[in-house]
Amino acid sequence: MSGWVAVAGLGPGSAGLVTPDVAAALEEATDIVGYGPYVARVAPRENLRLHASDNRVELERAALALSLAAEGRKVVVVSSGDPGVFAMAAALFEAWENGPSPWRELDIRVLPGITAMLAASARAGAPLGHDFCAINLSDNLKPWSLIERRLRLAAEADFAMAFYNPRSKARPHGFARVLEILREVCGPERPILFARAVFTPEEDLKIVRLADARPEMADMRTMVILGSSQTRLIMRDRGPILYTPRWSE
Amino acid sequence: MSGWVAVAGLGPGSAGLVTPDVAAALEEATDIVGYGPYVARVAPRENLRLHASDNRVELERAALALSLAAEGRKVVVVSSGDPGVFAMAAALFEAWENGPSPWRELDIRVLPGITAMLAASARAGAPLGHDFCAINLSDNLKPWSLIERRLRLAAEADFAMAFYNPRSKARPHGFARVLEILREVCGPERPILFARAVFTPEEDLKIVRLADARPEMADMRTMVILGSSQTRLIMRDRGPILYTPRWSE
Repeated sequence: MSGWVAVAGLGPGSAGLVTPDVAAALEEATDIVGYGPYVARVAPRENLRLHASDNRVELERAALALSLAAEGRKVVVVSSGDPGVFAMAAALFEAWENGPSPWRELDIRVLPGITAMLAASARAGAPLGHDFCAINLSDNLKPWSLIERRLRLAAEADFAMAFYNPRSKARPHGFARVLEILREVCGPERPILFARAVFTPEEDLKIVRLADARPEMADMRTMVILGSSQTRLIMRDRGPILYTPRWSE
Repeated sequence: MSGWVAVAGLGPGSAGLVTPDVAAALEEATDIVGYGPYVARVAPRENLRLHASDNRVELERAALALSLAAEGRKVVVVSSGDPGVFAMAAALFEAWENGPSPWRELDIRVLPGITAMLAASARAGAPLGHDFCAINLSDNLKPWSLIERRLRLAAEADFAMAFYNPRSKARPHGFARVLEILREVCGPERPILFARAVFTPEEDLKIVRLADARPEMADMRTMVILGSSQTRLIMRDRGPILYTPRWSE
């Protein structure tokens, strides 16, 4: 049996941020499995089977990839960003752990990619230059109370915070509550970055004070990064720079 | 004036994880600035000036890069991993903010790379598959009390935790204290990953219970990742898989 699964990160969307390891796996693959818009990023070619699926069917998608590999196929599961950060790698291992025993010794590799928070950070300066945390704001897979608790503890720890999946049509109200809590615990002056579709032609960056942040500034293509108490915002003609110094007092 | 500075992430050490954007910047550069071992990763060529410096002189290195760019040179500042995560980007912006006013409108770009925690995570499974934090354990630039406080709050928030710079010859004792605190707040069974020199020929992964973790398992080439209360460790012949499910109860 010579099949394998590689869970590969395509990065934020530009070809210049796809690693050579990921490019090589895509070339070697017989099958591409993933959410439709990510599969669409892979160039079609003869004998390459594309298996595009809907959002929110991560476990089914993972099981498909694993069963194809068990049949001897060479399968790349595509994620945007990095597969290990709020993406397909955890779903794949969950399906694998709960799957049939012949899957146990399958050849599974995770190929890292540029995750959204690091792409957004690079475009804005270096807001994650000191200790930070990453929180998924979707409450599809965890209770809302846990999100609130983590926000308050992260603020108390004075982490910079990177927020994935801040707001979707199905969850329009949660992010407004997040901004309220952050204003309460971090104060109105704390800078917050809304980085939409970075490294694509639709890129749009906004940096505002928490007092001026509005829920509509975020959608599912937006990465939101809140500075720590030490984060600096420097204005210049070329656009502002947001960075968190390496030191803390 | 056509000079520029690009702060580029070389990733964990293998050519397959250097992005095309970073490779292109290295090709276009007239000057490479960075810590010796990272500069040594760049292939020398005619008319390319290499400026290798010691560890712990980040601000001087940043100022050199900025003044070369101000003279019209094309400068790549090389970091390992991602430049925005405990690396050169924050130092560059600090030197820039405090530098002469003609630097203000310089062309400065940050080119993201694969940071150590994501490389380590990929090799072990997906331990950062749910909410997590990243903490630099060096107390060179922050008080030790802040590190302890962040550890306790991060444990209370039930984050997985990625630890950069866990231990060095100059700081042999701090990491032992970190392990004590983690055992106290997370209990003896929590899995912890020691990932040394990942994606290089010297790669070595160890996953142990906190009860069995010893300070000597880490050095400056080791990324340490602690699971959350939800993290799963699955044994198999090919080596264990450590992953944190996407959901939380």
